[in-house]
Amino acid sequence: MVIIMKVGATQQEVDHVIERIQASGLQAHLVQGEERVIIGAIGDTKVARPDNFNLLPAVDRVMPISRPYKLASREFNPYDTRVVVNGIQIGGPGITLMAGPCSVESREQLLETALAVKEAGAQILRGGAYKPRTSPYAFQGMGEAGLELLAEVREITGMPVITEVMTPEQLPIVEKYADILQIGARNMQNFALLHAAGSSPLPVLLKRGLSATIDELLMSAEHILAYGNPQVILCERGIRTFETTTRNTTDINAIPVLKSLSHLPVILDPSHSTGHWEYVSAVARAGIAAGADGLIVEVHRAPDEALSDGNQSLKPERFGEMVRQVRAIAEVLGRGASQAVSAPSPISLPVEA
Amino acid sequence: MVIIMKVGATQQEVDHVIERIQASGLQAHLVQGEERVIIGAIGDTKVARPDNFNLLPAVDRVMPISRPYKLASREFNPYDTRVVVNGIQIGGPGITLMAGPCSVESREQLLETALAVKEAGAQILRGGAYKPRTSPYAFQGMGEAGLELLAEVREITGMPVITEVMTPEQLPIVEKYADILQIGARNMQNFALLHAAGSSPLPVLLKRGLSATIDELLMSAEHILAYGNPQVILCERGIRTFETTTRNTTDINAIPVLKSLSHLPVILDPSHSTGHWEYVSAVARAGIAAGADGLIVEVHRAPDEALSDGNQSLKPERFGEMVRQVRAIAEVLGRGASQAVSAPSPISLPVEA
Amino acid sequence: MVIIMKVGATQQEVDHVIERIQASGLQAHLVQGEERVIIGAIGDTKVARPDNFNLLPAVDRVMPISRPYKLASREFNPYDTRVVVNGIQIGGPGITLMAGPCSVESREQLLETALAVKEAGAQILRGGAYKPRTSPYAFQGMGEAGLELLAEVREITGMPVITEVMTPEQLPIVEKYADILQIGARNMQNFALLHAAGSSPLPVLLKRGLSATIDELLMSAEHILAYGNPQVILCERGIRTFETTTRNTTDINAIPVLKSLSHLPVILDPSHSTGHWEYVSAVARAGIAAGADGLIVEVHRAPDEALSDGNQSLKPERFGEMVRQVRAIAEVLGRGASQAVSAPSPISLPVEA
Amino acid sequence: MVIIMKVGATQQEVDHVIERIQASGLQAHLVQGEERVIIGAIGDTKVARPDNFNLLPAVDRVMPISRPYKLASREFNPYDTRVVVNGIQIGGPGITLMAGPCSVESREQLLETALAVKEAGAQILRGGAYKPRTSPYAFQGMGEAGLELLAEVREITGMPVITEVMTPEQLPIVEKYADILQIGARNMQNFALLHAAGSSPLPVLLKRGLSATIDELLMSAEHILAYGNPQVILCERGIRTFETTTRNTTDINAIPVLKSLSHLPVILDPSHSTGHWEYVSAVARAGIAAGADGLIVEVHRAPDEALSDGNQSLKPERFGEMVRQVRAIAEVLGRGASQAVSAPSPISLPVEA
Repeated sequence: MVIIMKVGATQQEVDHVIERIQASGLQAHLVQGEERVIIGAIGDTKVARPDNFNLLPAVDRVMPISRPYKLASREFNPYDTRVVVNGIQIGGPGITLMAGPCSVESREQLLETALAVKEAGAQILRGGAYKPRTSPYAFQGMGEAGLELLAEVREITGMPVITEVMTPEQLPIVEKYADILQIGARNMQNFALLHAAGSSPLPVLLKRGLSATIDELLMSAEHILAYGNPQVILCERGIRTFETTTRNTTDINAIPVLKSLSHLPVILDPSHSTGHWEYVSAVARAGIAAGADGLIVEVHRAPDEALSDGNQSLKPERFGEMVRQVRAIAEVLGRGASQAVSAPSPISLPVEA
Repeated sequence: MVIIMKVGATQQEVDHVIERIQASGLQAHLVQGEERVIIGAIGDTKVARPDNFNLLPAVDRVMPISRPYKLASREFNPYDTRVVVNGIQIGGPGITLMAGPCSVESREQLLETALAVKEAGAQILRGGAYKPRTSPYAFQGMGEAGLELLAEVREITGMPVITEVMTPEQLPIVEKYADILQIGARNMQNFALLHAAGSSPLPVLLKRGLSATIDELLMSAEHILAYGNPQVILCERGIRTFETTTRNTTDINAIPVLKSLSHLPVILDPSHSTGHWEYVSAVARAGIAAGADGLIVEVHRAPDEALSDGNQSLKPERFGEMVRQVRAIAEVLGRGASQAVSAPSPISLPVEA
Repeated sequence: MVIIMKVGATQQEVDHVIERIQASGLQAHLVQGEERVIIGAIGDTKVARPDNFNLLPAVDRVMPISRPYKLASREFNPYDTRVVVNGIQIGGPGITLMAGPCSVESREQLLETALAVKEAGAQILRGGAYKPRTSPYAFQGMGEAGLELLAEVREITGMPVITEVMTPEQLPIVEKYADILQIGARNMQNFALLHAAGSSPLPVLLKRGLSATIDELLMSAEHILAYGNPQVILCERGIRTFETTTRNTTDINAIPVLKSLSHLPVILDPSHSTGHWEYVSAVARAGIAAGADGLIVEVHRAPDEALSDGNQSLKPERFGEMVRQVRAIAEVLGRGASQAVSAPSPISLPVEA
Repeated sequence: MVIIMKVGATQQEVDHVIERIQASGLQAHLVQGEERVIIGAIGDTKVARPDNFNLLPAVDRVMPISRPYKLASREFNPYDTRVVVNGIQIGGPGITLMAGPCSVESREQLLETALAVKEAGAQILRGGAYKPRTSPYAFQGMGEAGLELLAEVREITGMPVITEVMTPEQLPIVEKYADILQIGARNMQNFALLHAAGSSPLPVLLKRGLSATIDELLMSAEHILAYGNPQVILCERGIRTFETTTRNTTDINAIPVLKSLSHLPVILDPSHSTGHWEYVSAVARAGIAAGADGLIVEVHRAPDEALSDGNQSLKPERFGEMVRQVRAIAEVLGRGASQAVSAPSPISLPVEA
């Protein structure tokens, strides 16, 4: 960390800071500027709690130097992580498309939609059984019955399933049915859940919180990685801003930023990041153009009858058109659809590119 | 809800919307404007899922009329709720002061700080045993050992204890030791936790999420109320904005707005809402001046040695000065310190003023 | 507008609102809901000042129905506006690329950069002579000398010039040299400047303010249109949010939203919307993929020597690579480079598609 | 500035940065950390354009050390600035109350409101003659006729006048009538206007922009100060956030932060910062409790007939009640009403406390 002293700090005050640095097991390096003294503290600053140095007399401010995450950082692992699910790579050369209804509502609804999105080119089936809802009076999901339907439809279609887990207690039951665990935006800093997912053998798709910074998203990924699960997929799903025309603001910058800062796969959820079906395809194209490794999209056979998120769900035929466009854009960038890998290899992190 | 048709909607399109309204068990009222048709849908619109009407042809937009919360609303319960803890009223005529360290770190640290804040005028002792931390590498709290210390210090000082619960599974153990459950900002939409707290006999202090709107805070309170627990205390603790000079932005407007929209007690946490000890007293004064029913403040005997949040913790003597100021401001508004009620009455919601 | 009465409003209070509606020359339509009365006010509500109805007794809130802009709205003009500059269409079937240095710094710097961006495929030359700078101590631009250089380089390269105008007084001199006027983000609600630009014969590129909503951007365009200038180009350049990894947050949603709400051309400035050269190409691709009609990009022959915005300027060769990518993506969407129109036709708004 | 090299930067890359530092006339100080090299650059970094160092190979990021403003900073002028208008101090020991209608609408409306706010305790009269309006179709103010009315009412009431100036060209005419120039939020970065106001003999009340950081507000003040006008009053008037229940979010933290960072007077505008009359008094009290030097409040004799901002205007009697409350709170903090100074002394910046 770098400690910036106030203009006019006395020698005694500077010495006091230096003593505290040394008492924390760090080395102090003094730089005498024109206006003020700057002190570099060298060593493992995590132990030193940089914030506390702010409180010493005549300290103006403290600037951390190291990024707070390691395992999630490309600085410490330059090779792209590839998550493999049922032979489908996420984070490899191709792009991966996940689609399906917001909520599992019935066998017929799920199966019909799953067949339609598979036909259109989706590789992984999404569908919620446990639903976080702002209102206690809204549909809360089918629960385990929904998970059973997802498993049945996986058998029929061959598509692996991604579904949300909301609490550590739900994890064992969700693990029985799911191929990828989804942690939702509202739970991005539910640390008990992150730790439970960190102990799971399943890959985890981690959605960015509504007001989470990119650093905080990576810190939450770090929680999962630090608990032993290397298969984390990051998901941009829109942030909260002052703009209300759309439900959220797609932070498209986050796609290249995350690819630059981290080795983890990055996908975009244009359904939540816009909140309106009318804008989903345009933003899906933007995501792939910006370098996302894939998309997760809400599709419903009859959006105006959906029990949740109908407003942002595509009809299957629109989804098909979207798939054609994003595939063509991916090809411009030299990327095809993600390929099945010949042998369902054990998890491979890091994989050399 | 009110459904606004697009300019140029056909009679057939209008009729289709009316049919859907009626099929949802609602009545339709047509208003022919100069540019377009507006349709009022009368009845219990929660069942009708207003969002889905957005998807009908030629619908421009749909505006809900009813507020989405009922139990939390002053519209449906005009009398102030008073939460009573150990004979101390929260939400009554007086103001209530909660103070203590961010984290329980040791018996000595807790006891020394508790005695100091009691001496300074605090009525309720705060202290975290389970700590949500952005970094997996930071101090995560003492866990149950911390709860035991809180209970011991309660015995010594006579101060009831408020402490955070982070998961439904922790609830039984936290209930054993705490007098008030705290649900933190990051868990404001952890619905499983809200439901568990809704089944607890203890009062719940619910902190506003970093990017939660006032409506969403009230919806999360509604989850607790709907699960049967009427003793909810709302807490403004700063929201996330573009301003970075302070850790968060205190939404001082939220104090009078919440008092206007809801009958629940409202308190302010100026420690988190500023993030710097230097600004805590000024913002604490502002909170009481704006009409808050109390404060929750981080105090540490030696902030520069704190294991968490040292930067925003007051020393006991500064806290004492703050208490004198906020009490004097409360008196300007006709409010004293909250009084013990003679008999620890059963919970009384609503209480007629 | 729709006026929503409070629960429990009396007949007398309802009647009072109705009288005020009628006194404003509007018609009142009453809808009796289950919980409360809703009143539709029909007619030209601009005259009625909806806000004032908020103040009548027992009014809960007032919701406007009409959008506040007309001339900028696709609702009232469904045909895409095409702005034609020197035979180059903006807003037509093709995409338009504007590029050049942030600031004009010298003849050599400008000419070298202009030739390079032209070679790479840019059609319009950007360059600032008057620079709005946060600091009074930073380089404020070359002023008229810079404009003269722009005009000279236009003669040499044949590229029309876009440059910023900051005040109404500067307008006459800028008009002497420029082909397109640029109004910067900080001046989006400088209404005197909007009115002056509204009286200019030159097209106006209007940048969205840092914290302007989409509606406010369209209202500012409405100011220019209402003063008689139909040639307005909208420009998304990033908004201010809590995220600080990038200088601004590109609101990529705004591209399809603006194309849907308005008939005006929409371009993206990925240099400002990211603030880092490293992310400019990815976000430029995203913009075209999302449906933007063009891009405005900062390019500098030696960014590390630039007097302003070096950090977000592309080197010419990177710009060339970016052009190849965005052209290929435009082709996926059926769009080529914008074509010269045979005769420099008079301004054509609206043009039927 | 401090330059942080990437992990793994080579000696050659470090040397290159050092050469560039020295070529900029600065001294380089190397600190070898555990993971990476940190380089301090000592000297006048404004000349060096820190941003450009970001672009050198293997530079991770650059952190400025000096604050970008000097004249506005308490670091360089520890004594409170007191602006004196007609013998009334702003920024002295007492608090100053400015009040009046949003817009001047008629002689009768202005005079009646002025007499009422004077009676209630206001010391300075506010009123807008030139109005920045989002819509080109809304009332744009009375212009010079409004200024004449302000001057007439000043004669009658003895209250000095504060009114908004929107462009440099308006300045000479506004100066003829006004005692304090107001620069509105939308013009906070209208640099030509700041420079014109910097050359005026009148004090300037500078409102914070809707999305301006505290640093940017102080930089805009720096523009005025650097052009020679030391009489700047800072005004918090609410910022734009995701919260929509109120028109803006009062950044109450900004009050103590500005008082800490700058020697300039700080006042609060609770009318704009809330947007609803119902919340104005509570937030006015909060502002004074947080340490503001005064308030500027919209008052209208009949808010439901106001041509602008009726929704946030207090009736005179409510304003009177507010004045009584904020005066009592000011007294708790040891502050009375601002006193007339005996002789209308020449501008006094800095005044020793």
